[in-house]
Amino acid sequence: MLSTLIRAGSLQTMGRQFARSVETPVQMQHARFISKSSEVNSDYMTMRENQTQKVSRDYNSKLQVRLKKVSRTLSTLNNSIPEAASQTIVTKSDAREFMAVFPDLVRDLTEYCKKYDNTLAPKWFVKALQYNVPQGKKNRGLAAVLAYRMLSKSEDLTPENIRRAHYLGWVIEMFQAVFLICDDAMDGSQTRRGQPCWYKLEDVKLSGINDALMIDAAIFYVLKKQFGDEPYYSKLVETFNEIKFITTIGQSLDLRSARMDVTKYTMDLYKSIVCHKTAYYTFYLPVALAMHMTGFTDPEVFRQTKTILLEIGLFYQTQDDFLDCFGDPAVTGKIGTDIEEGKCTWLSVVAMQRASDEQKELMKQCYGSSDPEKVARVKKLYEELGLPTTYAIYEEESYNMIKTHIQQISRGLPHELFFKIMEKIYRRDC
Amino acid sequence: MLSTLIRAGSLQTMGRQFARSVETPVQMQHARFISKSSEVNSDYMTMRENQTQKVSRDYNSKLQVRLKKVSRTLSTLNNSIPEAASQTIVTKSDAREFMAVFPDLVRDLTEYCKKYDNTLAPKWFVKALQYNVPQGKKNRGLAAVLAYRMLSKSEDLTPENIRRAHYLGWVIEMFQAVFLICDDAMDGSQTRRGQPCWYKLEDVKLSGINDALMIDAAIFYVLKKQFGDEPYYSKLVETFNEIKFITTIGQSLDLRSARMDVTKYTMDLYKSIVCHKTAYYTFYLPVALAMHMTGFTDPEVFRQTKTILLEIGLFYQTQDDFLDCFGDPAVTGKIGTDIEEGKCTWLSVVAMQRASDEQKELMKQCYGSSDPEKVARVKKLYEELGLPTTYAIYEEESYNMIKTHIQQISRGLPHELFFKIMEKIYRRDC
Repeated sequence: MLSTLIRAGSLQTMGRQFARSVETPVQMQHARFISKSSEVNSDYMTMRENQTQKVSRDYNSKLQVRLKKVSRTLSTLNNSIPEAASQTIVTKSDAREFMAVFPDLVRDLTEYCKKYDNTLAPKWFVKALQYNVPQGKKNRGLAAVLAYRMLSKSEDLTPENIRRAHYLGWVIEMFQAVFLICDDAMDGSQTRRGQPCWYKLEDVKLSGINDALMIDAAIFYVLKKQFGDEPYYSKLVETFNEIKFITTIGQSLDLRSARMDVTKYTMDLYKSIVCHKTAYYTFYLPVALAMHMTGFTDPEVFRQTKTILLEIGLFYQTQDDFLDCFGDPAVTGKIGTDIEEGKCTWLSVVAMQRASDEQKELMKQCYGSSDPEKVARVKKLYEELGLPTTYAIYEEESYNMIKTHIQQISRGLPHELFFKIMEKIYRRDC
Repeated sequence: MLSTLIRAGSLQTMGRQFARSVETPVQMQHARFISKSSEVNSDYMTMRENQTQKVSRDYNSKLQVRLKKVSRTLSTLNNSIPEAASQTIVTKSDAREFMAVFPDLVRDLTEYCKKYDNTLAPKWFVKALQYNVPQGKKNRGLAAVLAYRMLSKSEDLTPENIRRAHYLGWVIEMFQAVFLICDDAMDGSQTRRGQPCWYKLEDVKLSGINDALMIDAAIFYVLKKQFGDEPYYSKLVETFNEIKFITTIGQSLDLRSARMDVTKYTMDLYKSIVCHKTAYYTFYLPVALAMHMTGFTDPEVFRQTKTILLEIGLFYQTQDDFLDCFGDPAVTGKIGTDIEEGKCTWLSVVAMQRASDEQKELMKQCYGSSDPEKVARVKKLYEELGLPTTYAIYEEESYNMIKTHIQQISRGLPHELFFKIMEKIYRRDC
C-alpha cells in the first residue's frame, strides 16, 4: 500500500522541477536529537510533569528560537504549525507510571518460569528481561498506553484497564527486545542503549538467542494472563504473530539486500524494507493493539490506521537516513555510517534514480567503503544530485499528504492521536 | 512431576543392592541405531508398506535372532513382550503421504509471504523452509498424525481431517526446525541431518536466526489458516506457545549448566533439562495437539497423558546418554562425545551420587576433557561404580512403571497409543 506514497517517478520529477527553481542548497543546522534507525527518538514522547497546560506557549516560543537557527522554509518547520503539534505525547508522570508496572511483569514471568523449573532458569530469565526490556526509550510501549487513553471512552479508563494497557505496552517492549537481541547478534553490533549488546556479555554470547526466544514465548503468556478472558484476546495474539512475521520479512530483506550491488537498489525495495522491518511494529502495532483493546472491530478502520501509520513510519526512516548523512553529529549525537556500511537508504536509492552511468560507476566504486575519501565523494555526489533539496520537498509533500489522510479518516478514530504521533516524528527535536 | 519418577535416593539404593548380587558387568552389544540426543530414532516409526498385517510374526522371529546377540536379561528385551510392541508406529505409505503435503505447506507460506513482499523475501523463505524443515526423520510430525488416527472416531477420519492432521504434523516439524537452527548456532555445530548446519552456509551465517524467527511466526499463520474456525483453535495456539516457553527453559538450563562443575550435577537438574528441553516437545506436544483436534477437553486426561509421555521422554534421553558412552559406534552409527563435552548426562549424575571424594576429584580432573586418556578414565570410573548394571535395572524399572501408568489411564484414551510410543523407544533398533 505504501507504493503509492512516494513514487520513484514523481520524486524524480519533483527533484528536477525543484532544481530549476532553487539553486542554493538548503543549509542544514538540524537542532535535532535523533536515535538509531530502529528506534524512535527518546524525547518525542515524554515531557516534564505539570507542563501539559502551559506547553503550548512554551513550545511556540522555543520553536521561534530554533527556527532562527534553521534556515529552512519547510511547512513542517514553519511557525504555522497545527494545534496538535503543540502538545507532547505522554507526560513524565505517565512514563513513570508505565515503568512502575515493570516489576509486576517480571514477577508474573518469574512465577510462570518457576512453574516449570526452580533451579537455574528463573534467575537467568529475570536477568535477561531486566537487561533487555526496560533500558530503552519505551516509545512503542508508551504509544500503546497513549493510544488506549485517547481511544477509550472516559468511563472505561478505570485503574484496572489502565493497568492492562500498561501490560500491553510492556509486551510491545518485549517484542522489541526479541528483535534487538537477535539483530545485534546478526549484525555483530557492539553496544545497544548505552550498554554492551546482550550477546557481547561473557556469560551470554550466542546463548542470548535462546533468551530472545524465551522472551518471545513469554509475550503470549502475558497476553493470556492479562487478556485471556476478553473477546479481543485472539485478536491481540494474531496481531502479534502477524507483525512478527512481517518484521522478519523486513529483516530478511535488509539482510539479503546488504550484499547487493548499490546500483540495484530501488525505491520499491527500500520501502519494502522500511515498512516491514520498522514501520509495522513501531507505528502500527501499538495503535492496532490499543484499538483492539478499546473494541474497534471494523477492518476498514484498521486499514485506514495502517495506511497512515506506515506512511509516518516511512517518513520517519527517510528522515533518519537523511540526518545520518546531512545531520550535524554535534546535534544528532551520532556519527552516521550508512555510506560506509553500504546500506539501502533513501539517499542511495534516489541517487541511483538520478545518476548518469558515470555517476553510477562512481557509486559502485565508493559506496560501502570505509575510506573517508570515498565516503566524502559519495556525499559530494549526493549534493551534486540535489538530494538535500529533494529531501526538503519530499518532507513537505509527505507531511501534507499524511495530514490530508488523517483528515479523511471517518470512522470514529480521533484525528488528534495521529496528529500527535506525526508531529512528534516530523519535529523530532522537541 | 517427573521428580517422583526416579528418585536419586532410590536409584542409589537399587544400585547398591544390585552390586551385591551381580558381579559380572553386563555385556553390551546393542544392535541399535540411535539418533542425536535431540532426535528420535529414524526407523522406529516407519515400516515397509503392506507389512502391517504380517509384521507381528516377522517381528517376533527377527527379535529371536537379535536376542541371541544380546546377552541382556531385561524385560524390555525379553521374548515376553506386550502385544503392542509387535507393531510399528506408522507405515511407509503414511510417511509418504505426510511428505506429499509439504509442497502444499510451502505454497501456502509463499503466498502468505508474497502478501507483504514480492521482491527478495519469498524465495529466500522457501529456501530456508526446504533446507530446514523436511530433511529430518519427521517422527514428531508423524507421531501427531498417528495419534490423530488412533484418537479419532472412524467416521471422523475424512480426507479433509487427515489433511489437517498432516498440517498439524508439519507445524511440529517447523517448531523443531526453529529450535534446531538456533541450537546449532548456539552450540557452534557443524552438521545437522547429514548436511551443513543452516548457519554454516556462506550466504546464511547468523542471519539464519531471522529465518528461525520467520519459521516460528509462520507456524501461527498455518494454525490460523487451517484451524482458525475450529473450537480448539486457541488451544492449539496456546499449547504451542506454552511448549515453546518450556523448551526455552530446557535450553537455558542446558546452556547454563554446561559451564558448571561436574560435581554440581544433580538428578533434579538432569531431569529438568531433559524434561523441558526434549520430552515436552518430542513426546507430549504431538499427542496433546492431536488430542485437542479430536475433541478432548478434560484437563485430567491431558495431565495423565503428560505424565506418561514425559516419563517416556526421560527414559528416552537416559538411554541415549547410556548408548553415547556404552553403545557400539559400529551399531549406533556415531561416536559419543558427551564425556568430552562435559555434558550433564544420566551417567555423570549417577556417578556423582555414588562417587567417593577421591572419585569426585578424578571426575573433576577428567570430565569435559578431550584427552583420550582422561575420557577412558571416566568410562572406567563409570564401570567401577557399576553404572551399566544400574542402567540395566533402571531400564527395567522404568519400563514397568510406565506400563503400569498406561494401564491406569481411565479416561477414554487408547492405551495402545502409549504402548506403541513406549515400545518404539524401549526397543529402538526395530
